[in-house]
Amino acid sequence: MIILGLDPSLSCTGWGVIRAEGSRITHIANGQVPTDAKSPMARRLSHLQTALEAVIAEHKPDRAAAEEVFVNKNPQSTLKLAQARGAVLAACGAAGLEVSEHAARLVKKAVVGTGGADKAQVQAMLKVLLPSAEITGADAADALAVAIASAHLSYTPQGR
Amino acid sequence: MIILGLDPSLSCTGWGVIRAEGSRITHIANGQVPTDAKSPMARRLSHLQTALEAVIAEHKPDRAAAEEVFVNKNPQSTLKLAQARGAVLAACGAAGLEVSEHAARLVKKAVVGTGGADKAQVQAMLKVLLPSAEITGADAADALAVAIASAHLSYTPQGR
Repeated sequence: MIILGLDPSLSCTGWGVIRAEGSRITHIANGQVPTDAKSPMARRLSHLQTALEAVIAEHKPDRAAAEEVFVNKNPQSTLKLAQARGAVLAACGAAGLEVSEHAARLVKKAVVGTGGADKAQVQAMLKVLLPSAEITGADAADALAVAIASAHLSYTPQGR
Repeated sequence: MIILGLDPSLSCTGWGVIRAEGSRITHIANGQVPTDAKSPMARRLSHLQTALEAVIAEHKPDRAAAEEVFVNKNPQSTLKLAQARGAVLAACGAAGLEVSEHAARLVKKAVVGTGGADKAQVQAMLKVLLPSAEITGADAADALAVAIASAHLSYTPQGR
């Protein structure tokens, strides 16, 4: 089972691909897709989508996973995040992938063992769980964490 | 100048295409793209996008226009709307279209003459402005209204 973890965001979307065989998890690839803040919104969204389509075409995941969206205190930030997420999820849908959604707390619990873990703890644990991975950055790390959590947790299709 | 107006929403996205030559506006086409509420989110978003790509390929607009997003009181509704908008805008971006954004009040003012017009007034005025149009429904009407507003108002690229 190949799982694509996603950390969608307009400025930089993280992605990570793992293979899960029973309880064994191995790293396949990870990366980040930055977009040019000076470009028009529609072009940035299309860029995210094209990049994710290429990742999906290359790694042929069986399913995808993303963190549940949290509603930011800043409505404009939430809108940007959700638009980016829409473009990224549409790329998954076009490839026939379903996307499971996991609460941030459960992702941390699955990776570190406690829902209150901080980013540094998650990243340290990723080095233990995926020793061969060269992690591109914080967004790719978040994407790998949600992929691992998705492998551990029972699969729940995203809100309909 | 061919303008594609958009009224993105997850349950049903409206679209309308007009031709604007100076102050003369003529109707080209309009329609609505419903999605199946029982389908997974990623598939619904992909469906919206595929349908809009077909509209763009058929009518070859020079630019697109959408209403400014309003932040709904229900955060989940706002997220769904913004995700749908992200998928629709990405389709525009992939076709090289820029998407101008117009406040709802200015759309009503451009179509009816007053920012406080209600939906019935907007739809009645659409029948006057676009007498040849058979309007598919309320979402297509909103999309035609924003296309007309965009033709009248100065062109401002969407927030970067």
